[in-house]
Amino acid sequence: MSGYSLHQPCPVDEVPAWDYETDVAIVGFGAAGACASIEAAGTGADVLLFERNSGSGGASGLSGGEIYVGGSGGSDAQRAAGFEDKTEDFAAYLKAAGGPCVDEAKCDLYAHESLKHFDWLKAQGVPYRGNYLPGKVIEPTDDSTLIWSGSEAAYPFCEIAKPAPRGHVIQHMGWGGGRPFVDILERRARELGVEVIPDARAVALIEDKDEGCVVGVIMRIDNVDRYVRARSGVVLATGGFVMSEEMRRRYCPETFRINSPIGDKDDGSGILLGMSVGGDAIHMDQFFTTCPWTMPEPHAHGVFVNQAGQRFINEDCYHGRVSRYAVDQLGDRVYLLLDQAHFLQPIDLAAMSIAGTGDSWEEVEAELEMVPGTLSATMSLYNEHAREGRDPLFGKRAPILTPLDQGPFVALELNFATTYFSFFTLGGLHTSVDGEVRGRDGAPIPGLFAAGRCTSGLPAWGHGYSSGMSLADCTFFGRRAGLSAAAAKAGTKARQIA
Amino acid sequence: MSGYSLHQPCPVDEVPAWDYETDVAIVGFGAAGACASIEAAGTGADVLLFERNSGSGGASGLSGGEIYVGGSGGSDAQRAAGFEDKTEDFAAYLKAAGGPCVDEAKCDLYAHESLKHFDWLKAQGVPYRGNYLPGKVIEPTDDSTLIWSGSEAAYPFCEIAKPAPRGHVIQHMGWGGGRPFVDILERRARELGVEVIPDARAVALIEDKDEGCVVGVIMRIDNVDRYVRARSGVVLATGGFVMSEEMRRRYCPETFRINSPIGDKDDGSGILLGMSVGGDAIHMDQFFTTCPWTMPEPHAHGVFVNQAGQRFINEDCYHGRVSRYAVDQLGDRVYLLLDQAHFLQPIDLAAMSIAGTGDSWEEVEAELEMVPGTLSATMSLYNEHAREGRDPLFGKRAPILTPLDQGPFVALELNFATTYFSFFTLGGLHTSVDGEVRGRDGAPIPGLFAAGRCTSGLPAWGHGYSSGMSLADCTFFGRRAGLSAAAAKAGTKARQIA
Repeated sequence: MSGYSLHQPCPVDEVPAWDYETDVAIVGFGAAGACASIEAAGTGADVLLFERNSGSGGASGLSGGEIYVGGSGGSDAQRAAGFEDKTEDFAAYLKAAGGPCVDEAKCDLYAHESLKHFDWLKAQGVPYRGNYLPGKVIEPTDDSTLIWSGSEAAYPFCEIAKPAPRGHVIQHMGWGGGRPFVDILERRARELGVEVIPDARAVALIEDKDEGCVVGVIMRIDNVDRYVRARSGVVLATGGFVMSEEMRRRYCPETFRINSPIGDKDDGSGILLGMSVGGDAIHMDQFFTTCPWTMPEPHAHGVFVNQAGQRFINEDCYHGRVSRYAVDQLGDRVYLLLDQAHFLQPIDLAAMSIAGTGDSWEEVEAELEMVPGTLSATMSLYNEHAREGRDPLFGKRAPILTPLDQGPFVALELNFATTYFSFFTLGGLHTSVDGEVRGRDGAPIPGLFAAGRCTSGLPAWGHGYSSGMSLADCTFFGRRAGLSAAAAKAGTKARQIA
Repeated sequence: MSGYSLHQPCPVDEVPAWDYETDVAIVGFGAAGACASIEAAGTGADVLLFERNSGSGGASGLSGGEIYVGGSGGSDAQRAAGFEDKTEDFAAYLKAAGGPCVDEAKCDLYAHESLKHFDWLKAQGVPYRGNYLPGKVIEPTDDSTLIWSGSEAAYPFCEIAKPAPRGHVIQHMGWGGGRPFVDILERRARELGVEVIPDARAVALIEDKDEGCVVGVIMRIDNVDRYVRARSGVVLATGGFVMSEEMRRRYCPETFRINSPIGDKDDGSGILLGMSVGGDAIHMDQFFTTCPWTMPEPHAHGVFVNQAGQRFINEDCYHGRVSRYAVDQLGDRVYLLLDQAHFLQPIDLAAMSIAGTGDSWEEVEAELEMVPGTLSATMSLYNEHAREGRDPLFGKRAPILTPLDQGPFVALELNFATTYFSFFTLGGLHTSVDGEVRGRDGAPIPGLFAAGRCTSGLPAWGHGYSSGMSLADCTFFGRRAGLSAAAAKAGTKARQIA
């Protein structure tokens, strides 16, 4: 009688019979799982790809289909637009973006290999128009390729690495390029003979304690537990844990300040599976969040203040970085301040409300019932500096830096409980650059690989996120996990598993 | 050939022979281990208490010997000083102090049982003078008992729970009451027949996979691995992981902003041991930090600003809470602002330096090379409000709230890299109120118990810490872990261990 579960692996000698046998078993059909399957199948390995839903997608399918690419002098799109992008600049940016959680080896490797990876994606069939769309956009509303998708041109990043736009978006009209992006990867995987088994939920890993390795996975299909032997390796690509309130409570409770988890069925199951055989989960408190406050575009020129009327960040950095710092502020809301020259109706999605208006910042301050001399003094100083083209306090830069001095004025409220602050988790399994799941002693767990948001990867630090970083991480390290899993041989799995 | 380690339990069938057999084996002889041993021995159980050093102490021995006590109407010391302390107020304070990481069951239980626990400590021989020492002190420099040791009287806590001082310090002249505190517990433990085995380092847990429980622990003594059978239970009381740079890098990297870990040999070994058998480690990113900036006492009246010249907290709350928020600020330092009426030479320990002086706040601002109109405006507004006896921005209160308007003025620099910001970790094993180590599914792991800073307990959230909370947690839940371990019977251990 086995008590196997997400928390408890099944010993191989308790497997009644193998329902499936394959070289590589992959759990999760988002971009990470798709890329792992393509690379594994490309080596000639038999690959089974399990997905809990009835079709592919995962959180990748909900994304913008944008990957963060650069280095090696720049992609075709970067060079055509006049941006050189040296590998050392790209690596420096990635490391700064990783903050205290950075995995330098992953940053260095990706910075070196990014363009080759971009070529690989094209070779799978992902189309890129190749053009550059200037300005501050969240995702292109047309089918453009290259956008500024991070904090590259903003302080302090612009002083750490020469800025270049690096968000490369699939050619696709409007938002939502993640769906066609995954569709293309799925088509390629099927061409290569990957067998996709949908409506299959991972229940437990199967381990061989004597050999010290993971040898398979139990999948629940049609309410029956199916025993899957993976001769070479199991790849976890199940996403983060944003949909598990229980895991968030234990590992990432700051997310309860905000209200809009984004994900598919990202319940942390892969992280738990990895931990069940001794895998290490790191930086579990980290999360990405953003509110689409830069839409409509004139709002990108706004100034944020907290409830004490203080600015807290250079507002020209990535919208998610601004949002992440906003959620750190004392109190339960922040305000986006705009003047007549920059105010338009905010988009409905954001669920921001007009909390105060006035012909002067003093009037706005009074309407917000803020302490006299706070917001108004902040804006007086800000405008004085902005008219001189500088922001000595937070380093905001032109052209986003503009005075907000043409009344009437307005304060939009971003309330943590009600405004749309979408978020997902960034912490997860500790993996090598080859996608091996590391134990708490740092050594790989033979037979077990992982990629995507069930791992801690390039987007390791919420305050440093840039759009396209997660999908870059999913696809690049997903590929490597697939290759590693295919290359792993039974018999070389010599380590004891906890 | 067994590969056991901190990360890898030893199967019971690989134990060559038992070197020790006992009912309860306790690892770590700080306050948590000592209390566990006393309670376990008190039930008639055989108890072995292992300690890595040559004597007792751990981080508890380095502490002030202060425990956070209240509720049930108030302790003798509280009542004698005129403070009523209702259980519901105490529980509400503890919960607010736990912030997003709170374990409400632990708060409720401790609030109800705290006075009984205080009596128990007295019964072990811990002396309390019983008097109240008013004012803002870090630890008494005399042998007084009762001090304000948290943020009870400060916003927002004072609006959540009726304030009362709750820091109860052992009768002991000066700082460092933790050493005699542990000595008394050690004496009691030895009286009860607890066998203490020093210079013994935990190497691995021993598990019985068939029975699904922990049955012992391997201790390295004189460089030989000794197999310890614990018929009833193993208690981990090994402290946090502040001395493990490797674990901090993976789980608590913000601590690299500051420089002074405090602890004994707190390398996280107990947390790793617990995780090696499927134990869940939670809130691993949390840490306590403080700088002794309130000494000399007039400095408690100071105002903190960050590098943008902004205040960020009501400075009348607990010095550790102020310090924790300080470390959250952008940049690499904060400043403590004082006027002539409140400035004395800072204590050497703090390693704070005078970064600027002036006859006006404008002059200080200029000397700090801060943006004109920042610090000076902050202080102008602060003083205007303080003269009215209010702080509408952050809620600082009299009598700590005083204008700082008698020049000359001074700015002390608290530099994260060089100023003494002591810190220790707060995250650890997830335990029940009975000290059972929980698996990631929430269910207890039979045979395994834990207490103190290798667990996440009452002091779960760095921003809410109050002095005495950790020692309260160590001693109270240490006792419960010892009782639970003694009561656990072989054969009732029916759960599979990961």
